[in-house]
Formats: sequence, structure tokens, C-alpha cells
Amino acid sequence: MTLTIAERMNHIGTETAFAVSLEAAQLAKTGKKIYPFHLGDMNIITPANVREAAVAAMNQGKTGYCPTAGIPELREELAKDVARSHKIKLTADNVSIQPGGKPLISKFILAVMNPGDQVLYPNPGYPIYESQIEFNGGVGVPYGFKEAGDGFVLDMEAIRQGLKSGARIFIYNNYQNPTGASSPRQEIEELARLCVKHDLVVLSDEAYFDIRYGGAPLSIASFPGMAERTLILYTFSKKFAMTGWRLGAGLGPAKLIEQISKINVNHESCSNHFIQYGALAGLRGSDEGPRQIVATLQERRDLLVEALNAIAGVRCFKPEATFYLWPNVTGVMKRRGLGDVEELRKLCLYETGVSFCTRRHFGRPLPGETQQYVRFAYSGINADQIREGMALLAKFLK
Amino acid sequence: MTLTIAERMNHIGTETAFAVSLEAAQLAKTGKKIYPFHLGDMNIITPANVREAAVAAMNQGKTGYCPTAGIPELREELAKDVARSHKIKLTADNVSIQPGGKPLISKFILAVMNPGDQVLYPNPGYPIYESQIEFNGGVGVPYGFKEAGDGFVLDMEAIRQGLKSGARIFIYNNYQNPTGASSPRQEIEELARLCVKHDLVVLSDEAYFDIRYGGAPLSIASFPGMAERTLILYTFSKKFAMTGWRLGAGLGPAKLIEQISKINVNHESCSNHFIQYGALAGLRGSDEGPRQIVATLQERRDLLVEALNAIAGVRCFKPEATFYLWPNVTGVMKRRGLGDVEELRKLCLYETGVSFCTRRHFGRPLPGETQQYVRFAYSGINADQIREGMALLAKFLK
Repeated sequence: MTLTIAERMNHIGTETAFAVSLEAAQLAKTGKKIYPFHLGDMNIITPANVREAAVAAMNQGKTGYCPTAGIPELREELAKDVARSHKIKLTADNVSIQPGGKPLISKFILAVMNPGDQVLYPNPGYPIYESQIEFNGGVGVPYGFKEAGDGFVLDMEAIRQGLKSGARIFIYNNYQNPTGASSPRQEIEELARLCVKHDLVVLSDEAYFDIRYGGAPLSIASFPGMAERTLILYTFSKKFAMTGWRLGAGLGPAKLIEQISKINVNHESCSNHFIQYGALAGLRGSDEGPRQIVATLQERRDLLVEALNAIAGVRCFKPEATFYLWPNVTGVMKRRGLGDVEELRKLCLYETGVSFCTRRHFGRPLPGETQQYVRFAYSGINADQIREGMALLAKFLK
Repeated sequence: MTLTIAERMNHIGTETAFAVSLEAAQLAKTGKKIYPFHLGDMNIITPANVREAAVAAMNQGKTGYCPTAGIPELREELAKDVARSHKIKLTADNVSIQPGGKPLISKFILAVMNPGDQVLYPNPGYPIYESQIEFNGGVGVPYGFKEAGDGFVLDMEAIRQGLKSGARIFIYNNYQNPTGASSPRQEIEELARLCVKHDLVVLSDEAYFDIRYGGAPLSIASFPGMAERTLILYTFSKKFAMTGWRLGAGLGPAKLIEQISKINVNHESCSNHFIQYGALAGLRGSDEGPRQIVATLQERRDLLVEALNAIAGVRCFKPEATFYLWPNVTGVMKRRGLGDVEELRKLCLYETGVSFCTRRHFGRPLPGETQQYVRFAYSGINADQIREGMALLAKFLK
């Protein structure tokens, strides 16, 4: 028989970072100790008040369906919460609860992108943007980052070129995976100005909005003329250490939220019912849980940045947000005579057990890239293991 | 500004049954007592062993991501379970855990249907088949049901016509929503023969496979030449009263399962982690929970079938499976001089509070349909409320 797979499946991408997890897991089975810096997952348990509220709802029988767009209480509470943090107007009609933050990427693209449309997206960036743009017949227009002073800035020239060539959709990820970049106010102001001028529709991926160690929170949706054209990707995953619960939301213009929820009717009916009461308790409860999570992550960041910069030929910024570092390893590669950053990754993994991702896992390299980067995540590894692993790595790369 | 919605959103359908829920809810707010026969939801709590295992996993920290295709233990256990009930060979590689049964419909279509492909699907049937076929550029080829003896049989002529015109994908829902129909062995045998002969790819929607009151379980995947061309849509929703948990699975050829899981990487990363341990406990545990659920539903079915048949001009079969009835109300409509089955629905709702869905909520009527049907669901209403509501309805329709 011939089980023919549809042609469109030739155009779907994946998270190649999963292959790194698999490689590390296979190596671990041989007895090698692994220091997991490749994971974007968290080894921190969800705060007790969130867990308790979810369990209570489950045992009270919130085990049947709920409305497609989520329980009204959570939609209202989240609208209030984001309205406050973003200084914009939102009601429950502007909120669609989702089984994670990620589902918003495909739903946003399905709802606003026609085949052939050009979409500006960050590269290096979360690989699902590129995958879903191409899977659904769009044309991805990548823009990169540049080192400047004490952090990364956007390649505004690439963005301007994309707009000139006709891009009408803009995907933006402030507090960025993988670079850890935060836009300074003037950068985000300029982006907002361009979005309004070119009448763009915007996906603001704010997955790491609440994982901040300093600075005032900034969302592109807060700037004049932006709220009515922006879908905010919100997730409970990071703030409340709920990655495996799969709960997030889209917040944006009611007209767009309606379309998103229509896709939910088709794809999944609704998100898990009782866990929404857990998230509600998280939003209404004390900040203690989220503050503890950020404090834990901040300790790890400080340790790791210092350890990386102590290695000759490695240069690492200290981001104000996310749980990722994007060290420049060009120097170490030259010293070792390595041509491909994947060679460095494999060497470090097999020699020291220190496992991380590289530039290759976050989009196709752009023309003219000369610097080499890797990604260290510190959400899934404790401080003592960071010390131990980085000591081995420093010794190996000496 | 112009927030332009993509053209494809003109071709997405919905579950119009949700509008009935809304109408009933609004009427309830005015003080009218509602007898909810319109819901496919369950008012039965999930068995305690399932809830307890999920809570234990949550509190043990199973709150981070799990593999995209699900935790290995659940994939293995479900493979064993379905291999046993279906008498086919399955391993964990044949299983992809999903956030519900419904996500399999869109993922199956994305994975095997090219634009322009003809897809045979049941009508009356679950409206998401039609919606997802058309949304993704396919051509829906509907087939209906006929009354015969003590139940419904498939319109095999329509299926043969569809095959002649070139259909290459077949969507089949034994233990059917909304008709409650079960295929007799010879019918399903003939279907399997046609599927092999025409080299079809098949979605076997088995959402109600475990809600059976009699008869031996029959899956089209069990017939010769079928397992290698069939994706089984499995759900924990009905068997374990877990509708609101959103947990299901696809089981089928490894080649197809791989494609399905690739879509999961893009759409949702993974399904909720800790609830998978609840489902695992359900599969491994005693049958007491599921048996109690079926016993509760059977009592309701018996009551409701009798009450419906006691109304002059109503004819209702007693299905061996599902929690739906599909009474023929042609007689009552003639007597009342009603032209549209929606008029009957509204009359009954506003006069008696008895709320149900109609033919209109399960696909576009087919040419030549002369009989009128409505759908009664008894999964969300207790026996005493069935008695009370049906007494009011009988009096009103006398």
C-alpha cells in the first residue's frame, strides 16, 4: 500500500534543539554525567498555591469542558493583569486562553497571513516562527542582532529593507530567546513607529516578559497605535514555572481574538479546565512564588555569566531578562581551529558533559555572519551543577 | 488601521451546537429551568484513581515539559491496551499523545490531504471533519445514513459514488456522533474491503469506542490490510470522564505518527505532563471507574429512549453505544405544521426548557433528505432530570 504524506509536510520545521536533548540523554545512558544547559525547561516546581487551586478545582468536578476561549474568571483576571503591566485597555473579550504560549504562533499566522505574504521574524530566534511561516505558504524575512555596548541590538537596517520589500507582518520577541536581548526604549519606540507607518500586524512574543532581573518592563503593545494591531503571546509557563502544564493566552484586538478562538474550536475545543483555576490563583495570589523563581534564576545567571567570561575567547553579556545566555565563542573556536560551531558543541559535550545549543538551532545562518554563538540555558540546572560543569569546561577550553 | 484577516478564515467552520448552549444559558438567566440534552459534555466526575495519580505526579514535580509524543510509559501502555482490544500489533512508536482526541482531526488532514483531494466523511457527523477538510483546501464528499431494522446503516451507495469520483481519504466514525450508529460486522467488513481495494488512507474516529452497552467492539483497523493505512483517534475523555482534561492519542503506522508528532512540535510542544500519569493509572487500574460510567449512562439511555418513543410522531432507536440518540421527529413536525427542525428545537426550548441539537448542527443537509432528526445527548443530565424534562416535553408535544 502507499500511505502518501501530504506535500505540505515537506515544509514544516522542527526544534532541532530536541536532537541535542536526545544526544545528551543517550550519552547519559553510557554513564557520562551531563550538565544540561541545552534545555529551555525549568527544574523548579510550580508554586504550591497554583498547584493547590488546580487540585481543588479538579476534585470539585471541573473535569468537563469549559468555554473555548477559557473560563470567564481567568480571561477577566488576565485582562486586568496585562492591562496594568502594559498600561493598555483590555477586557475579557481581548483574551483567548490557549494550551500553552506556543499555539499562538501557528494560530496568529493562520489568522492573518495569506500565502505569499512576507513576514519579518527574528533570526536567531525561536525556530517555530520560520517553520510556521513557511508551512503555511508565507515568505520569511529574517532580521538579526548586533553586539553593541553591553548587549544586543536589532539589525534595524534588515527590518527597514524587509519593509521596503513589502513585509506586512512583524514577529517580535522582546526579552528574546536565544540572545536574552531586551530592547532599549528608543529601539522599541522606533519599531512601533515603523509598525504604525507601514500598517503592520504584529505578534509580540512575550514568553519571558516576567523573567526580568532589572529594568522597567516594556511591551511594543504599549506604544501609541500598537494595541489595535498587536497580538500578545502570554504564557504562564515561565512566571509560575508551569512549562509542562501547557497554559498560555493570546491578548489582542477582539476581532483577532475571535478568529484565534475559532481555530481553537477546530483544533482542541478548549484548554484543560481545572488547571485554569490554578493559573487564576497564581494571578490573584501573592508574588512570593514568581519572585522566588526569578531570584533562583538570577543567582544562576550571575554565576554562569562570570564563569563564561572567565574562559579566554568567550564573551558573554549579562542580560536583564530571560534564562538564556548567548556567548560569542568566535575566539575559542579560532584558538581551537574549529570551523563549525557544532564541532565545538560536540567536543564540549563528549569531553566534559556540558551540553548546550548553538546558532544552528535557532534558524538558518544569515549571509555575512562572521561571529559564532552558542546558547546556554540556566533554567534546568542548579547552581552547584553550574559551578561543577563550568569548572570542567574552563579546564577543557583553557 | 486595517487589521486584515487571512482569506483562509472564510473557510473555517465551527460547532454550531455551541450556539445552542449559549441560547440555553441565556434563557436560564431569565429564570427558565433548562434540561440540557444539547451537551456532549459529561456531568460525571473523573474516577478517583485517575485524579489521585495526576495530583501525585504534579506534586512530584512532573510540571516541566515531557517528550512531544508523550511520556514513554503512557505510549507503551496505550499501545498494549489498544493492541489487545483491536487484535493488532502496536508499540510505543505507533502512539502520539495529544491534548484531546479532536486535535487528531486537523493533524490527520494536514498530514495526508493535499489541496484538491476528495475526502469521504459522514454527514450527519461531527462538524469538524467538514470544517478541517475545507479549511485545508480539500473537497468534502459526504455520505449519510439510512434507517434499517433496529438502527442506522451507512449509505454505501454514496460511499461507492465517492470512490468512483476519486476520493482517496476516508473518515469513519463507528459508534457515531450524532446518530449513535454501530456498524454491523458485515458493513464494516465491506468498508474495509473498499478501503483496501481503493488504497485509501483512513481516520477511524473511535471517540466512543469504550462507551458501549452491548455487542463486541469493532474497529475498522482490525480488518486485514487496514492497520497499515488507518489512524485511530483515541480519547481518554469518555471512558474516564475526562472531557475537560484534554487528553487523547493517535495510534497508527509509525510513518504517519511521526508526521503527526512533527505538527505537535509546532503547535503545542507537548500535552500536559502530569495528567498523563492520571491516564496511565486509569489504563493500569481496575475497570471499576469506566464500568460505573457506562452503567450510569445506560440507565439514562434506557429512560430516554422509552420517553422519546412514548411521544406520538417520534421514533427512536436504542443504540448499543455512544451517549447520543437521533430520534426521527418527522411525524411530530407534520402534526405541528413545522417546516424546519430548528423551529421545533426553539419551540421545545422556550416552552419546556428541554434543550437539544438538530440535524442542522451536524453538517449541511444532503440532497433528497426527507426525514427530520434531532440529537439528544444524555451525558450531561441525571436520570431524575431526564424524567422531569421528558414529562414536560411529552405534555407539550401531545
